[in-house]
Amino acid sequence: MRLGMIGLGRMGANLVRRLAKAGIGAVVWDRDPAAVAALAAEGAEAATDVADLVKRLAPPRAVWVMLPAGDATEGALAELATLLSPGDVAIDGGNGMWKDAERRGAMLRGKGVDFLDIGTSGGVWGLARGYCLMIGGPAEAVARLDPIFRALAPGEIAASPTPGRDAGADPRPPQGYVHCGPNGAGHFTKMVHNAIEYGMMQAMAEGLELLHAHDAQLPVPDITEAWRRGSVVASWLLDLTAQALAHDGELSGFTGRVGDSGEGRWAVQAAIESAVPAPVLSAALYARFRSRQDGPFADRALSAMRNAFGGHLEPK
Amino acid sequence: MRLGMIGLGRMGANLVRRLAKAGIGAVVWDRDPAAVAALAAEGAEAATDVADLVKRLAPPRAVWVMLPAGDATEGALAELATLLSPGDVAIDGGNGMWKDAERRGAMLRGKGVDFLDIGTSGGVWGLARGYCLMIGGPAEAVARLDPIFRALAPGEIAASPTPGRDAGADPRPPQGYVHCGPNGAGHFTKMVHNAIEYGMMQAMAEGLELLHAHDAQLPVPDITEAWRRGSVVASWLLDLTAQALAHDGELSGFTGRVGDSGEGRWAVQAAIESAVPAPVLSAALYARFRSRQDGPFADRALSAMRNAFGGHLEPK
Amino acid sequence: MRLGMIGLGRMGANLVRRLAKAGIGAVVWDRDPAAVAALAAEGAEAATDVADLVKRLAPPRAVWVMLPAGDATEGALAELATLLSPGDVAIDGGNGMWKDAERRGAMLRGKGVDFLDIGTSGGVWGLARGYCLMIGGPAEAVARLDPIFRALAPGEIAASPTPGRDAGADPRPPQGYVHCGPNGAGHFTKMVHNAIEYGMMQAMAEGLELLHAHDAQLPVPDITEAWRRGSVVASWLLDLTAQALAHDGELSGFTGRVGDSGEGRWAVQAAIESAVPAPVLSAALYARFRSRQDGPFADRALSAMRNAFGGHLEPK
Amino acid sequence: MRLGMIGLGRMGANLVRRLAKAGIGAVVWDRDPAAVAALAAEGAEAATDVADLVKRLAPPRAVWVMLPAGDATEGALAELATLLSPGDVAIDGGNGMWKDAERRGAMLRGKGVDFLDIGTSGGVWGLARGYCLMIGGPAEAVARLDPIFRALAPGEIAASPTPGRDAGADPRPPQGYVHCGPNGAGHFTKMVHNAIEYGMMQAMAEGLELLHAHDAQLPVPDITEAWRRGSVVASWLLDLTAQALAHDGELSGFTGRVGDSGEGRWAVQAAIESAVPAPVLSAALYARFRSRQDGPFADRALSAMRNAFGGHLEPK
Repeated sequence: MRLGMIGLGRMGANLVRRLAKAGIGAVVWDRDPAAVAALAAEGAEAATDVADLVKRLAPPRAVWVMLPAGDATEGALAELATLLSPGDVAIDGGNGMWKDAERRGAMLRGKGVDFLDIGTSGGVWGLARGYCLMIGGPAEAVARLDPIFRALAPGEIAASPTPGRDAGADPRPPQGYVHCGPNGAGHFTKMVHNAIEYGMMQAMAEGLELLHAHDAQLPVPDITEAWRRGSVVASWLLDLTAQALAHDGELSGFTGRVGDSGEGRWAVQAAIESAVPAPVLSAALYARFRSRQDGPFADRALSAMRNAFGGHLEPK
Repeated sequence: MRLGMIGLGRMGANLVRRLAKAGIGAVVWDRDPAAVAALAAEGAEAATDVADLVKRLAPPRAVWVMLPAGDATEGALAELATLLSPGDVAIDGGNGMWKDAERRGAMLRGKGVDFLDIGTSGGVWGLARGYCLMIGGPAEAVARLDPIFRALAPGEIAASPTPGRDAGADPRPPQGYVHCGPNGAGHFTKMVHNAIEYGMMQAMAEGLELLHAHDAQLPVPDITEAWRRGSVVASWLLDLTAQALAHDGELSGFTGRVGDSGEGRWAVQAAIESAVPAPVLSAALYARFRSRQDGPFADRALSAMRNAFGGHLEPK
Repeated sequence: MRLGMIGLGRMGANLVRRLAKAGIGAVVWDRDPAAVAALAAEGAEAATDVADLVKRLAPPRAVWVMLPAGDATEGALAELATLLSPGDVAIDGGNGMWKDAERRGAMLRGKGVDFLDIGTSGGVWGLARGYCLMIGGPAEAVARLDPIFRALAPGEIAASPTPGRDAGADPRPPQGYVHCGPNGAGHFTKMVHNAIEYGMMQAMAEGLELLHAHDAQLPVPDITEAWRRGSVVASWLLDLTAQALAHDGELSGFTGRVGDSGEGRWAVQAAIESAVPAPVLSAALYARFRSRQDGPFADRALSAMRNAFGGHLEPK
Repeated sequence: MRLGMIGLGRMGANLVRRLAKAGIGAVVWDRDPAAVAALAAEGAEAATDVADLVKRLAPPRAVWVMLPAGDATEGALAELATLLSPGDVAIDGGNGMWKDAERRGAMLRGKGVDFLDIGTSGGVWGLARGYCLMIGGPAEAVARLDPIFRALAPGEIAASPTPGRDAGADPRPPQGYVHCGPNGAGHFTKMVHNAIEYGMMQAMAEGLELLHAHDAQLPVPDITEAWRRGSVVASWLLDLTAQALAHDGELSGFTGRVGDSGEGRWAVQAAIESAVPAPVLSAALYARFRSRQDGPFADRALSAMRNAFGGHLEPK
């Protein structure tokens, strides 16, 4: 089994590398020839364009698109729709919008091509740690590509077994990948994953600021280090936080302007569409918005009102 | 009936002036002799110190303390406790903590002196518009000082009658003052009033920022002006907002650093003590805290985490 | 000048009635013949269907659609697009989504027909109190229909003049109506208005619950009555709240399941699209979502986690 | 080295058991004789009352109080203050308020007795997994009791080493315990830990509800199982959640009434005192408050307002 990979940024390239470690080869393409050459030097087969990539794979093919959500992914899938054959599988492993996945699945199904929307978590650590995969699409296609998913996933060893999990239950989730449902379900699940991530990060951040602001100078790096063992907040995010604080307890290399990607936003929108209260997921998103503002209109309006009714001047 | 007034800042001085318009005289004192002289020039009787002020009033006396919450008010009431006689009334009209009012009431009651904690709303507009008074303390003392409260309050004309309000109901609230209960109840009610004020302001501010951020350049000053009539958000805060925007549609004279006083904080704490969810009151308070921060530790922590798991750099 | 009115629910019918009081006639239609007959009995001209309504108006016509947002409005505007002539004006006065207004404006413009999206605030009180109108669309069409807007709006007398408002400024906002910009701007502004309304309501509701939960039994109806005069929270919403509490201080006729319409949701989505923090607007929306849930999955998940790590049982 | 343990509930008893596994004996007392007998049967030395417990220990003594925060703890420490000798150490390992720890530390210091406030995390899993300890108090006392802390803590093996942590840094945090500062610092840190825990739990809960509410029936138990490996939200709380969902994917054994203890509340209050925005920590707390309410006054007030201005009836 070989995989076509379109898009050799950090994520795409490392997926190929992790597959190679498991003996699964790849035909690769990127609009940046240097990226292709780098992977080729490591043993992947280089393609000159998408059509060439498709040609180099034997049917039934599997082609993974790992590009920025939006136009880049849309274009690649549209091109693949014209090149792939019935029975092939096209994959969007990026951070796409789940409704786009539903639409793209229908579009490709119309050509007899299976589509999988896969939420891929793991970031810069995925190559070593394995990727958690949240997969939407037809069960048969998911089953056929199982060796690929199993190679990419962290494997059972990455966590202790869950007591009480039924021995007859789906064996894939304990490996770190899960078939979430039809097209859209993979990206929907990844969206929720990222929203939870935002919320957990914000909970941690608020707590750390509380520690940092306390009169008694608390050893914040040591506290996060201790929490990694035996506490209720032990988590991978805490591991990374302890690591960053070990490097610089004041985090002075950061200005505090915090980016956000589509998924945190879509999750709040999905919550609203489903009438699900999501105060923490929203608060986490807004904290990021606010971190990128200086003296926003809302705050000036508050100052103007206070001045108007109470004669209050703005504090220094 | 005459009133002793301790503290001739904007609020204290204007209370005296509004009483004078209703033919109620005052004996006044402030640690700033110029403030005393100014009121004396307008007809008030000047006292040289608190003891002198008490001496100049005939029992049963009523002495209103209008000083910053905290030490200033505490000191003045402690001094009054030694000077007043049984049957006198001491008033704290400032923004005190309601638990302090309970304590102070008990302390003065021990000397036979009645205590009233009065939340006084009206700000810089109170002289002309009247003051909304929220009164805690013994019913008899409240009744005895009724002419003072009636003179300070805006009066029935300030709003249309409430349909369905029982003809036999307490006639004071439609004048703009209310006996809320025993000591503490006045300041508790004022605290809740201010918390609602914070929430309403923040609702308005967020909406205005949404309008301001919209692609189509919306005429925000005109919109707020139109909303003053017939809309659901018509309110005094909106009147003031429209006024500020009429002056400068960009509110560019403000930096957006927004102050907060004790009451918004105490209200959230009271909510927590009563297990009452208060998401809006809290969010309004936090928006003010956040407005005074630059690159807080929490936001730097978020950036550090994003960098650690995803290699994300901070946005510009 | 006459107006065609499609949709004679409470809002549509009362708009016609308020116009009639100003001497502006209407041709009316509704799918419910009884609603048409009722208005006809009051002097409006009855139409038998939309085509008939259009025929009964002399060009250039103005036809106001006052139907539920969504299919009903979409259908009526589509039908009007086939019936109206260049130079006519079609109006959507309902609670439509602002992006739909942009689209509908373009659609009708393609036929030479002007489109106005008008946010109409006033509810059951509008007939007596006047309607606050937020108008999006071409300036010429807005100008041509000015007599209609002026008749519907509350008029300058509904509020005191705004000090500092430029004498040369647009004279319409002080009447209670405002031209917000091109198509979409009217409904966008109405959406923001409603979101502010949600936020103000929630601020008030949280404060009232705090008063209600206080140990000392506070006279909540009297407090809201007093706040109506001289306080910072004086507002139309407070007037209505005082009215409801005068009727029943415990509000025991209500279960506390709170509905929400599209606009509060769209506003949060617009905030997210513009990266504007909207914690209060969101919290107000979520409080409504939550009010309609019993034992939601999220809360069961919290209980399950507490049980799992701490052995905690659920409280009674 | 031996430890006196007062309070043999689940936490106290298991602390004794974990110490015993490390060869550290204990003298134990509880007001429930059966609890004392049970521990004695496992090898601990039974005391008949607190005075007897103190007598059975050789100075310098260490006595750990593991009782509910509040009166029980206060009483035990007051009694110990009369029984212990200079050089002894009294420990409060419960979930006390950090300001109480400051006060108690000063009180005991006045008697020459050292006091340690220790936040103890680990719950029902601590016996097997070890306890994360957050310690406040004098450095010398912390150092003297190091064997006890080391025995209770999970040990270095419980997590992988933190890359970049200085080899010369305090060796205790990587074992799972940390000296946070003077008295109060331990309980303050535990309070923040619990607040973060609340926030993380609520983030998870909201995300799970989103998954659960999605149209496509998502396999929530499998999704949480997969997330345990390689995802960004991997955490001990997720492990427990997956476990609960493996048992019952609908969590139907829970009603969704969620308890809260003092620490989540104190943390929000501490945030307010420090002017630190804590939207997520607060939202998590409020969600629990709300989970225990049915038709609260706030929601009835919203319904009343909607009815008053718009004639809206409550949804079913």
